[in-house]
Amino acid sequence: MEQGQSTETIGAIATPLGSGGVGIVRLSGPKSLTVAQRLFLSARQTFEAFKPYRLHHGWVTDVHGARLDEVLVSFMPGPGSYSGEDIVEINCHGGPAVVQAVLEAVLECGVRLARPGEFTLRAYLNGRLDLTQAEAVAEMINAPTASSLRLAGSKLAGGLGRYIRDLRQRLESLRVQMCVAVDFPEEEIECLAPEELQAGLEQVLVDIEAIMANFERDRYWRDGALVVLAGRVNAGKSSLMNAILGRERAIVTPIAGTTRDYLEEQVNLSGLPVRLVDTAGLRETDDLVERAGLSRSRELLEQADLVCVVLDSSQALTADDRALLQEAPNETTLVVLNKQDLPPHTETQEAVAAQGLPTVPAVAVEADGVDALIRAVRQRLVGERQEPEQGELVPNLRQSQGLAQAREELRALYDECRNGVPYDLLSVRLETACTILSEIIGEMTPAAVLEQVFGEFCIGK
Amino acid sequence: MEQGQSTETIGAIATPLGSGGVGIVRLSGPKSLTVAQRLFLSARQTFEAFKPYRLHHGWVTDVHGARLDEVLVSFMPGPGSYSGEDIVEINCHGGPAVVQAVLEAVLECGVRLARPGEFTLRAYLNGRLDLTQAEAVAEMINAPTASSLRLAGSKLAGGLGRYIRDLRQRLESLRVQMCVAVDFPEEEIECLAPEELQAGLEQVLVDIEAIMANFERDRYWRDGALVVLAGRVNAGKSSLMNAILGRERAIVTPIAGTTRDYLEEQVNLSGLPVRLVDTAGLRETDDLVERAGLSRSRELLEQADLVCVVLDSSQALTADDRALLQEAPNETTLVVLNKQDLPPHTETQEAVAAQGLPTVPAVAVEADGVDALIRAVRQRLVGERQEPEQGELVPNLRQSQGLAQAREELRALYDECRNGVPYDLLSVRLETACTILSEIIGEMTPAAVLEQVFGEFCIGK
Repeated sequence: MEQGQSTETIGAIATPLGSGGVGIVRLSGPKSLTVAQRLFLSARQTFEAFKPYRLHHGWVTDVHGARLDEVLVSFMPGPGSYSGEDIVEINCHGGPAVVQAVLEAVLECGVRLARPGEFTLRAYLNGRLDLTQAEAVAEMINAPTASSLRLAGSKLAGGLGRYIRDLRQRLESLRVQMCVAVDFPEEEIECLAPEELQAGLEQVLVDIEAIMANFERDRYWRDGALVVLAGRVNAGKSSLMNAILGRERAIVTPIAGTTRDYLEEQVNLSGLPVRLVDTAGLRETDDLVERAGLSRSRELLEQADLVCVVLDSSQALTADDRALLQEAPNETTLVVLNKQDLPPHTETQEAVAAQGLPTVPAVAVEADGVDALIRAVRQRLVGERQEPEQGELVPNLRQSQGLAQAREELRALYDECRNGVPYDLLSVRLETACTILSEIIGEMTPAAVLEQVFGEFCIGK
Repeated sequence: MEQGQSTETIGAIATPLGSGGVGIVRLSGPKSLTVAQRLFLSARQTFEAFKPYRLHHGWVTDVHGARLDEVLVSFMPGPGSYSGEDIVEINCHGGPAVVQAVLEAVLECGVRLARPGEFTLRAYLNGRLDLTQAEAVAEMINAPTASSLRLAGSKLAGGLGRYIRDLRQRLESLRVQMCVAVDFPEEEIECLAPEELQAGLEQVLVDIEAIMANFERDRYWRDGALVVLAGRVNAGKSSLMNAILGRERAIVTPIAGTTRDYLEEQVNLSGLPVRLVDTAGLRETDDLVERAGLSRSRELLEQADLVCVVLDSSQALTADDRALLQEAPNETTLVVLNKQDLPPHTETQEAVAAQGLPTVPAVAVEADGVDALIRAVRQRLVGERQEPEQGELVPNLRQSQGLAQAREELRALYDECRNGVPYDLLSVRLETACTILSEIIGEMTPAAVLEQVFGEFCIGK
């Protein structure tokens, strides 16, 4: 991934694929303006030049001057634009062939097709956004619910970047004071006592813990949780799934998914985004556990943030039921005693109680029975926690891993300081911690990390 | 469909559904500006008002002031805007939840969700576009290929509207001269001789014929042609379909289609848009013709612009083959003698020749064999005709039907004139012809027609 060398002008369709009222072809780079001048016929006789941040009405043509579409064109000069470079947006009719034709005309003018996330990469490389803000752009676009949107918005506004920059500055300040102590051991001025260093480190550690706790606590609100319905045939998984979808708002994901041999729906459980999977679509064999071992079931059960083991409470437990209960990990299991509308089977109730797993009664045919299940699922995933507030800062996985690394360095540093390790050695470790924090916000970030971050973007952003 | 009463402000997502870099929420109507003022937080401290046709950078909020997304907002005041009303466009990040949240905030401000095509309907009602231009907007968005795009572009620029308006003016002018002759029979001034009337009508008829010929000749270029591959199992339909798709550019239609029990692909045959259907997906029964009578096959074969009857030329004709050949209408059939790589079956060749249907040899496994088939398909559909030129005017079905009606009136008028029917009676018929032409361009068009035209639009346009 090249850094800083944005001499190439890039272009892409910036709007989603498909048919709509408006489609946008976006250019960024030094040639944007001349390409726009070449392909634009103004509706005004008196048109002379593109004024910055104005909408210009006219026609876009191909390179031979043939009109392609009636458009609004805007020019946003660098360095104040989104990418920090000259940007042109051609606002045309939103048909697939229209935007494709306009894009082709643009590419014929020596513009290169943009790679996924390349506009935002350039924004980052040109210092318009730090890396946490750049990631927030993708989080914004992929946000499944209103609350995940709010979390992305807070990061886009730069809150997380500022928080981490502040932590690093405090560490830098400690390091400067340590260096003074190392470089001028004779002098007493500004020398940092080991207790002061430890106190400073402790405060930074508290703040790192605080924001990492947000990650643990709020990641389901941001990324959604994977909830898997498991259980033998006729335990009522599919009816429960349909009942949940009927009670809550299913999220329509307009992007075609990959072919799956299980049923998956995105659902909004009162604001909590959940991928709800019914394993019923998986091929059933006689031995449920063996099947799970062989098929995708096991994979799903292992990935799941919550496994709902659905049992028919009116029937005796089968070998399959028992095997599932046996396998179910305590932390991520909710036992659903389904079919409460039928007379209960006493031994089943007792056997389940003996397992000591969290349990909820359910009945797909009654609204109350479904609501109880939905409440129990939410309780298991996020406890009593409500939707995150506006402005709350929730790191993503990469950011959280970086924070964990920084925390380990600082904890080791703290211990070494207590054990009397000399400042010049401690200083190296402190520098490492600062570097890790810098990488999170995108200062001194390795190319491989950038490649991964921007590779997850869509084209045109 | 209400006309002229645009007191309501409407809003909709104007970009295609899905994920992308940019999504647009569009408002039109008297409240657009106040809604924008309420939901917009400028990035500038000095922001005072939305300047027309400027991009304003800032944040869009919900009705409680909580930030939803970083946006560019533009204001296009009526009557010079697209719809002729005040328009506001909120350019946000292109995630489904983002644009949905912004739309919901807008709707909470008392804006009504726009109906399909309602922005363009308002543009038409406010005299910003004539009806042929409004239709061209939808044709532009739905255009499957570059040539269909060009045809829509010519109409969007108003070419067809001008052409028809000119025809009507010439007829109006004839009518005025007839009226003079009727109202002032004593005076000799400007009286129109029957021969002059006939000559004028003849010229208009020639011009109507000319543009109607474009419809017949070019409609495949605009709307695409339906080509159906028919034939019994193992005649090689699927291989031919795949071979054609492999040779030519398949058009990716990102809109999910309805569930079908046959295979359909959009393909670009050197610029000619074709819907290629392989009936192989249809359930096969023993009696191919009976099956066709019962299933969708017959419907497809009747709708088809071209039926390719695929025969295995290395085998004897079966009863199914013969039945298909028997049923095939001369005008829309191409017999494909497939599997030319195998030794030919002489009787089959002779039997086909005896039918006198256009025939092409084909072989799916060789590029030449596929190209020959593609050429034959194009030849049957459009003859030697090349892609329509820039600026060519091709009416759509509604426009063409209107032109046909006008033609009938004018022909009858011509005959009546020759038969000495008096001018006051002829004048009524001439008025009818003028009204028909007016309806085509949207002057005095019945509400039911408007409803149909705009009902075919997408929401947000």
